[in-house]
Amino acid sequence: MARLPRIADLTPNVSGWSFFLCTRKETRVGRTGNPYLEIGLQDASGEARAKVFQDVDAITLEFDAGEFVKAQGRSNVYQGRTEIILDKIRRVIDRDRAEGFREEECIRCAPRPVDEMWTELLARLDSVQDPQLRSLLLRIVRTHEERLRIWPAARVVHHAYRSGLLEHILQIMKVSLFLADEYGARRDLLVAGALLHDIGKLREMSYETTTDYTVEGNLVGHIVIGIGMLHDAVREEPGVPAELVTEIEHLILSHHGSLELGSPVVPKTIEAFLLAAVDDLDAKLHQIRQHLEADDTPGRFTAMHKRLDRSLLKPSGS
Amino acid sequence: MARLPRIADLTPNVSGWSFFLCTRKETRVGRTGNPYLEIGLQDASGEARAKVFQDVDAITLEFDAGEFVKAQGRSNVYQGRTEIILDKIRRVIDRDRAEGFREEECIRCAPRPVDEMWTELLARLDSVQDPQLRSLLLRIVRTHEERLRIWPAARVVHHAYRSGLLEHILQIMKVSLFLADEYGARRDLLVAGALLHDIGKLREMSYETTTDYTVEGNLVGHIVIGIGMLHDAVREEPGVPAELVTEIEHLILSHHGSLELGSPVVPKTIEAFLLAAVDDLDAKLHQIRQHLEADDTPGRFTAMHKRLDRSLLKPSGS
Amino acid sequence: MARLPRIADLTPNVSGWSFFLCTRKETRVGRTGNPYLEIGLQDASGEARAKVFQDVDAITLEFDAGEFVKAQGRSNVYQGRTEIILDKIRRVIDRDRAEGFREEECIRCAPRPVDEMWTELLARLDSVQDPQLRSLLLRIVRTHEERLRIWPAARVVHHAYRSGLLEHILQIMKVSLFLADEYGARRDLLVAGALLHDIGKLREMSYETTTDYTVEGNLVGHIVIGIGMLHDAVREEPGVPAELVTEIEHLILSHHGSLELGSPVVPKTIEAFLLAAVDDLDAKLHQIRQHLEADDTPGRFTAMHKRLDRSLLKPSGS
Amino acid sequence: MARLPRIADLTPNVSGWSFFLCTRKETRVGRTGNPYLEIGLQDASGEARAKVFQDVDAITLEFDAGEFVKAQGRSNVYQGRTEIILDKIRRVIDRDRAEGFREEECIRCAPRPVDEMWTELLARLDSVQDPQLRSLLLRIVRTHEERLRIWPAARVVHHAYRSGLLEHILQIMKVSLFLADEYGARRDLLVAGALLHDIGKLREMSYETTTDYTVEGNLVGHIVIGIGMLHDAVREEPGVPAELVTEIEHLILSHHGSLELGSPVVPKTIEAFLLAAVDDLDAKLHQIRQHLEADDTPGRFTAMHKRLDRSLLKPSGS
Amino acid sequence: MARLPRIADLTPNVSGWSFFLCTRKETRVGRTGNPYLEIGLQDASGEARAKVFQDVDAITLEFDAGEFVKAQGRSNVYQGRTEIILDKIRRVIDRDRAEGFREEECIRCAPRPVDEMWTELLARLDSVQDPQLRSLLLRIVRTHEERLRIWPAARVVHHAYRSGLLEHILQIMKVSLFLADEYGARRDLLVAGALLHDIGKLREMSYETTTDYTVEGNLVGHIVIGIGMLHDAVREEPGVPAELVTEIEHLILSHHGSLELGSPVVPKTIEAFLLAAVDDLDAKLHQIRQHLEADDTPGRFTAMHKRLDRSLLKPSGS
Amino acid sequence: MARLPRIADLTPNVSGWSFFLCTRKETRVGRTGNPYLEIGLQDASGEARAKVFQDVDAITLEFDAGEFVKAQGRSNVYQGRTEIILDKIRRVIDRDRAEGFREEECIRCAPRPVDEMWTELLARLDSVQDPQLRSLLLRIVRTHEERLRIWPAARVVHHAYRSGLLEHILQIMKVSLFLADEYGARRDLLVAGALLHDIGKLREMSYETTTDYTVEGNLVGHIVIGIGMLHDAVREEPGVPAELVTEIEHLILSHHGSLELGSPVVPKTIEAFLLAAVDDLDAKLHQIRQHLEADDTPGRFTAMHKRLDRSLLKPSGS
Repeated sequence: MARLPRIADLTPNVSGWSFFLCTRKETRVGRTGNPYLEIGLQDASGEARAKVFQDVDAITLEFDAGEFVKAQGRSNVYQGRTEIILDKIRRVIDRDRAEGFREEECIRCAPRPVDEMWTELLARLDSVQDPQLRSLLLRIVRTHEERLRIWPAARVVHHAYRSGLLEHILQIMKVSLFLADEYGARRDLLVAGALLHDIGKLREMSYETTTDYTVEGNLVGHIVIGIGMLHDAVREEPGVPAELVTEIEHLILSHHGSLELGSPVVPKTIEAFLLAAVDDLDAKLHQIRQHLEADDTPGRFTAMHKRLDRSLLKPSGS
Repeated sequence: MARLPRIADLTPNVSGWSFFLCTRKETRVGRTGNPYLEIGLQDASGEARAKVFQDVDAITLEFDAGEFVKAQGRSNVYQGRTEIILDKIRRVIDRDRAEGFREEECIRCAPRPVDEMWTELLARLDSVQDPQLRSLLLRIVRTHEERLRIWPAARVVHHAYRSGLLEHILQIMKVSLFLADEYGARRDLLVAGALLHDIGKLREMSYETTTDYTVEGNLVGHIVIGIGMLHDAVREEPGVPAELVTEIEHLILSHHGSLELGSPVVPKTIEAFLLAAVDDLDAKLHQIRQHLEADDTPGRFTAMHKRLDRSLLKPSGS
Repeated sequence: MARLPRIADLTPNVSGWSFFLCTRKETRVGRTGNPYLEIGLQDASGEARAKVFQDVDAITLEFDAGEFVKAQGRSNVYQGRTEIILDKIRRVIDRDRAEGFREEECIRCAPRPVDEMWTELLARLDSVQDPQLRSLLLRIVRTHEERLRIWPAARVVHHAYRSGLLEHILQIMKVSLFLADEYGARRDLLVAGALLHDIGKLREMSYETTTDYTVEGNLVGHIVIGIGMLHDAVREEPGVPAELVTEIEHLILSHHGSLELGSPVVPKTIEAFLLAAVDDLDAKLHQIRQHLEADDTPGRFTAMHKRLDRSLLKPSGS
Repeated sequence: MARLPRIADLTPNVSGWSFFLCTRKETRVGRTGNPYLEIGLQDASGEARAKVFQDVDAITLEFDAGEFVKAQGRSNVYQGRTEIILDKIRRVIDRDRAEGFREEECIRCAPRPVDEMWTELLARLDSVQDPQLRSLLLRIVRTHEERLRIWPAARVVHHAYRSGLLEHILQIMKVSLFLADEYGARRDLLVAGALLHDIGKLREMSYETTTDYTVEGNLVGHIVIGIGMLHDAVREEPGVPAELVTEIEHLILSHHGSLELGSPVVPKTIEAFLLAAVDDLDAKLHQIRQHLEADDTPGRFTAMHKRLDRSLLKPSGS
Repeated sequence: MARLPRIADLTPNVSGWSFFLCTRKETRVGRTGNPYLEIGLQDASGEARAKVFQDVDAITLEFDAGEFVKAQGRSNVYQGRTEIILDKIRRVIDRDRAEGFREEECIRCAPRPVDEMWTELLARLDSVQDPQLRSLLLRIVRTHEERLRIWPAARVVHHAYRSGLLEHILQIMKVSLFLADEYGARRDLLVAGALLHDIGKLREMSYETTTDYTVEGNLVGHIVIGIGMLHDAVREEPGVPAELVTEIEHLILSHHGSLELGSPVVPKTIEAFLLAAVDDLDAKLHQIRQHLEADDTPGRFTAMHKRLDRSLLKPSGS
Repeated sequence: MARLPRIADLTPNVSGWSFFLCTRKETRVGRTGNPYLEIGLQDASGEARAKVFQDVDAITLEFDAGEFVKAQGRSNVYQGRTEIILDKIRRVIDRDRAEGFREEECIRCAPRPVDEMWTELLARLDSVQDPQLRSLLLRIVRTHEERLRIWPAARVVHHAYRSGLLEHILQIMKVSLFLADEYGARRDLLVAGALLHDIGKLREMSYETTTDYTVEGNLVGHIVIGIGMLHDAVREEPGVPAELVTEIEHLILSHHGSLELGSPVVPKTIEAFLLAAVDDLDAKLHQIRQHLEADDTPGRFTAMHKRLDRSLLKPSGS
C-alpha cells in the first residue's frame, strides 16, 4: 500500500498509510448506538480528523493521545471536510524508523524552512547600527539558538507549532522596520524589541511533542522571564548604555499594550507603541487566517471565534 | 521693521511683525497684580503663545479670538519655550492684503504641499485593478475635490489642520497597502477603505478658519454620513458588484474597531481588521508626536496626555 | 383519527394528527440504552417537544429539521410539561394540501391578526401632522408592505415569529405617543422613529420558514441598512426638510441607546431618549414574558435567563 | 420703586426690588482689575445670576450665601442671558415680613401647586384594589405627610426643589399605570412601588432652605431607609400578606435597575422591571429639560451634560 | 461486613458499608456501551464519587439524589482519586436508625465541633465593652440560636456545609479584632459587624439536607434581610444609641465592598473597610483551600477555578 | 523670640520662629485685591499652611518652593484649621546650622524612630527558618540599608514620607504573619514577600527633600525593578532552591492583586493572595487615616477622597 500524501495535500478517496502524532483520542457513540474512535492526527503540514469504526475495543489499546502512530486507511469527505477512515492504527515502534519515521515530520511546523528563517534573522541583527547593541543581540541569539529555532509562539492561540516563535519574530521585525521608517522611530530599538519581546517564552513553555506551561511560566510569565534573560546577557556584554537597556526592557514589558492584557507598564515611547500594535496585529491576523482555514460550517460566515468574539466573512472564492 | 519668520522657525530675540490667526485671547493678572493679555497666534507652520503687557485696556478692543491679526513684537524664552511679547496687535484690514496677507498662510497646514499630496492620491487610485471600482473612487474624489484638498481630519485630536484629512488618508493608504502584501489582503479594498473611512468628515465638520461640528455631524456622525456619500456615488456609477459595495461599507462602518469606539459593527474581514489597526496607529502616533513637540515641562517625561492617559519619555536629544 | 388542537391549546392524553414545522431533530440514548428521537414541532400558536420511541431507524429517514411534517401521536405530561409521543411522522407531500395543510399555520405567528395590525399602522401614519412626512412614511410602508406584514423582529431574542416586527413597531408607537404627551415630545417624530427604527431588519435577515442573517445584515447591520432605506424613500419624496430627515436618522441610529449596544451615536434629543427607552423596555418585557411561559423548572423561580442574567419570580397563580 | 416680577418672568431692563434666597456669593476680578460680587438668587420660579459692581467692600458684609435677602437693581442681558445688576442687597430682617417676605416664595418649587398634587396622590391610593394594601399605603402617607408634601427628590440631580419628590412620585405613578395596562402588570403593586421607591429620601436628606445628606443618608442610603419605613408601617398594619410585602420590598430595592447603580438586587418581576425603567426615564428627561433650559452657550448644541456625558440638540425654535 | 471509615479517612481497597447522603445520581454509558450509575456520596467529613456497574436497572429504583442511603462496596483508585465501587445501595429505612444511622453524620459539617464554636462566640460577645450593645448582640444570638448553630454560609461558594456560617463568623471576628488593634479601629463595632454581616442568610436560604434560596432571599437578599433582623432586635432592646445602630447597619450594608458586588453603599468608616476586606479574604482563602483539596488534575497546577478565574499552584509536597 | 513647637503640636496664637521645608509657594489675590503668598511648610511631624501678607514683592525673592527656610510668625485659626501668618521667611543659610537647623527635622518622617524599626526588621528576618533564605534576605537588607532606612513608600499616595517604606514593610510583615498562622500559610515566604514586594521603589523613585520618579521607574516600574534586585542577590547567594526563588518572584509580581492594577500575573498561591490583600488593606487604611486628619470641611463627612471615590464619616469625637 502507498504512503499517504501530507495532510495539507490530502484529497478524498486516497488509500495508504503514514506516520502521525496522535493529538486526541475519544470514544463516541454513533447514531446506531455503536461506539467508535474519533482521533486527531498531525503531521508537519497540518491536522486532520480520523475515525475507527471496526475492532474498536482491540484497536483502542494500541495507542494513546500524545504518541506517534502509524496509521492506515482511506480519505473521505464528511460535512464538507476531509477525514480519514482508519483500518489500522498503532503506536510507533523502533523499526518504524527504518521505514522513514521522523518525529519532526509528524509535528506541525511553520511553513517556511527553519534554516531560511535563521539566515534572515542573522541578517536583520547585522543591520543594527550600534555595535554594542548588535553584539548583545547576537549573544542572546547564540545562547538560545537551540530553542529559538524550534519553539512555538504559543500553546494554542497563534503560531502554535514548531518554529512558530521564530516565524512570528521575523514578521514583527519586518513590519516594525517598515513602520519605523514611516513614523521616524529608531530601527535599532525595534530590531531589539522584535527579537526579545517574547523571548521569555523559551522558558515559559516546555516543548517536546506538545507544549505546556512551566511552573516559572505560570508564576512569572514570559514578559518578566524575558527581562531576566536580557539582564543575564547584559552582564556578559556590559557595553550597552544603561538607558538603552532600560528602553529595551520597556519594549518587552509594555508589548501587550495595556495593563489588562498583562503588561506591567503601558507604552511610553514611539517604539513601544509601534511594537505593541504590530504584535497585536500579527497575532490577530494569524488567528483569523487559521479560523478561516479550519472552519467547516455551512454559509458565508464562519462559526463564532471565541477569543475574537465574532464570526468572520469567508472569502468569496471559498 | 522686518517681517518675523514662520512660527516653526522662530528663535529668541527676533523683532518684527507678521500676520496670524488669533486662536485665543484671555485677560490674566500678573504677579504684580496688573492685568495682561495672553494670546494664541497661529500660522501655517504652527502655534505660539504671545503676551501684551502694555496699554492692555486699549489694545484688547482691537481684535478678538477667531480673527486674523497683524501683530508686532519680539520673541522671548519663558519657561523653556519661545513666546512673543507684543507691542501692537490689531485685526487685519483690507489693505493688509497688499502687504502680503493671505488667509491660508495664517492657518495651520499639513507639512506636505497639497498639490503633491493630491497627485499621490490620484496615482494610488489609478493603481486599483477593478476598473469599475477605480471609476467609482475617482468619481467620489472629483465630486468632493474642493473639500478633500483642504479639510482637517479632526477638530482637536489629530491632523487637526488644513489638509490634515488628505495627509491622514495617504498615510493610511501607504501603510495598509504594505500590510496587504504582507498578510495577503486585497489591495483594491484597502485603497477604497483608506479613501472612504473618514470621508464623512467632509460633512461632519464645517471648516473655515476654525473647525466645528455640524448638526448632521453631531446627530449622525462621520461614519454613517460616509455611507450615504458612498451610496450617492454608487447610484451614479452602478457597475460595482453589490457585495463589493457591501464590503466597502463594512470597512467604513467597522474602522473604529469596536462598538465602544463608535463603530456599529466590528471588523469581520481581514481588510477591516487591517484598516482599523492602521487608522488607530496613525492617529495615536500623530497625537504622540504632537504632544512631544508641544510639551514644555521640565524633566525627562512629558506632562500627562489626557486621551492616552500617560506621560511619555522625551527623546534623549531633546 | 381526529386532528390535534393547536399547540397552545393542547391538553394531556389527547390523540390525533396535525401538520407542523419540524424545528429540531436529535437522536438521543434513553436510560435503557435504546436510541429515540427528540423533535421540536411548531404551529402558529407555539412550540412543543415530541418524541419517537419506536421504529426510530426507519422513521428518522422520513423527515428532517426545517421541513413541514404530518405527525400523529398522543399528548403526555413529562416533568411538568406537555409533550407528544409520536407514532408516525413524515414530511408533507403535495396532496396534504387537500387535507388542509397551510404553511402559515405551521409557523409561529404574532398573536394579533396581521390585517388588524396593518389597519392600526395605517391609522397611526394618518395621524402624522406634517403632510410631507406623512407622505414619506406612507411611501416607505407601501414599498416594503410585503415583508413588513410578515417579518419577525429577531432571529431568537424577542418577537422572533411571523409578523413579530409589525407587532413590535405598533407597541413601540403606542407607548411612545403616550410618553410624548407626558413629556412634551414631538408626536410626528416618534411615529417616524417607531416605524423606522428596525426597518433595516427587512434586509438584515432573510425569512422563510426560518430566519437567518444576510451578508449585508452581518457586515452592515439593520441600523445602517435602515438609514439607506430612508434615503431611498427621501429621494422619491424630497419635500421633507433636511433637518427633519437628519433628526429621524438620529432616531434610527441612536435607538440602541449606547455605543456598547451598537448605536454609532447616543441619543441627543428628547425623542431619541424616549424611543431608545421604549424599545429597550418592550424587548425586555417580551423576553421576560416568553421566559416565564417557557420555563418548566420546579420551584418559585425560573431557570437562569442568559441574556438578562437572572432568574425570575414566577407569578403566584402559576 | 416697584417689586420685580418672578425670576421666570423677568425681562431685560426692568428695575425694582424683591426677596430672594442667596444661593451663591463669590468675589471675582473684572477685566479692569476691579473686584465685583457674583451672586446666585432664587425664588419659587427659578434661579438667576446677579452682580454687584459698586461698594463691593461694604455690601459684601451685608449678607451671605444661604441667607434670604432683599435686593434691588435692574435686569440686563449678558451673553444671551438675563442677569440682575444690583444696587443694594442685604439680609432679610424681621420687619420685611410686613412687606410681604415669605420663605416659601424664595425657594424653588415644583411647577404644580402642592395641594393639587396631594389630592391626586390620595385619589391614586384610593384606586388600589386590595383593601389591606390600600390601608397600609394611606397610613404611610399620613405618617409622613408633612415631609412628603415639601421634600425635594434630590440634592442636585433632578426635581431638586420644594415638592419635587411628590411631583416625581405622581409622574412615575401615572406612567407606570399606563404601562401596567399595556404589559399586563399588577396595578396595585405599581402604585405601591411608585409611592415607596424613594420614600427613604425623607430621611436620607435634610431639607430647609438647602438640601443635605444626613449621616443615615450617607451610611445607609434611601433605598434601605425606605425598607425600614415600610417595615414600621407593616407592624402597625399587619394584614398585608407577607409575600406581597416582600414583592414591594423588591420594588424598592431593585428600582435603580442594576447593582452598579446601587440596587442590592436586580429586578426579577415584571413590575420591578417596569418601575426601574420608568424611574430612570423620568429622572433622565427631567435632567434633559433642565439642561436645555439652563444652557446659554451659542450654537445648535448645548454645553456638555456631565452626568449624561453628551451635549444635546436644542429645539429649533429656541 | 465492617463499616467503612469516614470519607475523609478512606484509603484504597477497603470493603464495607455505611450511611451517606446521596447528592447526585446519573446514568452514564461506559466505553463498552453499557450503562452505569455515577453517584455522589456525602458524610460529615467530605464527599466521594461512587459507581454501580451491576444490576443497574434494578438498583436505580432503590434510591434517589437527595435521599439518605445505605451503601456497600469497595474503595478503588481511579485517575488518582479514591472512589467507591458499590455492590448495593438503597434508601435508608426506619430500622437503620438502630444500626446507627444519624442524619447529621451524613451531612458535611464544619471541621470544629459546634459546641466549641458556640462557646467561643459567647465569649467574644462578652468581651463587648458597651453594655447595651452587648445586650443587643446576645439577644440576637439567643433569638436565632437554633439556626445560627447549624446554618451553612452559602449554597455552593464557601463554607457551604452544616455550621459553616458560624465557623465563618468566628474567623471573621478573630481576624477583625487583631486588625482593629493594629489599625486603631473600634473592637465593639467589629464584633457586631462580624456577627451580623451575614445574619440575613438565616432567612435568605432554607437548609435541611440541602440548601436553597427562599423567595425572600431571592427578592431581598441577605444584606437587607439582616438589616430587618437588626431592627427587630433593636425594638426589643432600644438602649443602643441611634448613631451606633446606624454604623452597624453600615457595616452590614457595605460588607461586600462595592456596589458591583451587591452592597448598596460602599464602606465609609475604618471598621467598614476592615470588615469588607476580612470577609473577602476569608471567603477567597476558603475557596482556594477547597479547590486545592478537590483538584485531581495531573501536573503542578490545578484546573481552572471559575470564580477566581485562574489555576493555582499545588503545594510542593502534595 | 522663642522657637515654635513642632507642626503637629502647634496651637493657635503662638509666636516664634523655626526651620521648615517649603513645599509650595503661590501668589494669590485677596478679597481686597491685594496679592499675598500662600506657602506650605513641613517639618518631621507634619505640614501646615502659612501666609505672607506684607512686603510680598520683597519677601517672595527670599525663598522658593523646595528649599529649606527659616520662618517667623504667629499661629492663627482660619476655617477651623491652624495656619501661620508670617512676618519673615528666607532660605536657610550656612550659619543656621549653628542655631540648630537639621535637614531631617524639616522633612516629614514616619512616626516611629528609624532605629527602632530597623531593629524590628532584623528580628523578623532572624525568625526565618530556612537558613539559606534568611541569609539571602539579610544580604539584600545590608546591600540596600542606606536607602531602605529612609525611603518613602510613595510620592503622594500613602506613607509618602521619610522612612515610610520601612514602616509599611514592617506593618505588612506583622499582619501577614498573623494571617499565615490563621490560614496555614508559610511564614518564611511571607517574611520574604513583605520585605521585597516594594523593594524596587528604592530605584523607582529618587528621594532627597522631594520624591520623584526615575526614568527606570517610569519605564520599568518598581515591581520588575524589584525582580532584578532579587536576581542580583540570588547570584551572590545561590543556595536558595530555584522553585523557592520563583515563588518569591511570584509574590513580588502579583502583589497588586490584578492585571488592571499593574501586576503582570495574578496571585496563584495562598501566600500571594494574603500578601496582596494585606498590602491593599494597609495602603487603603493609611490613606483613610491621612484623609481624616487632613480634612477641614464642615459637617460629619469629609470632602471627597478622589482615589477612594467617596467621602468618609468623621469619628464622632472629632
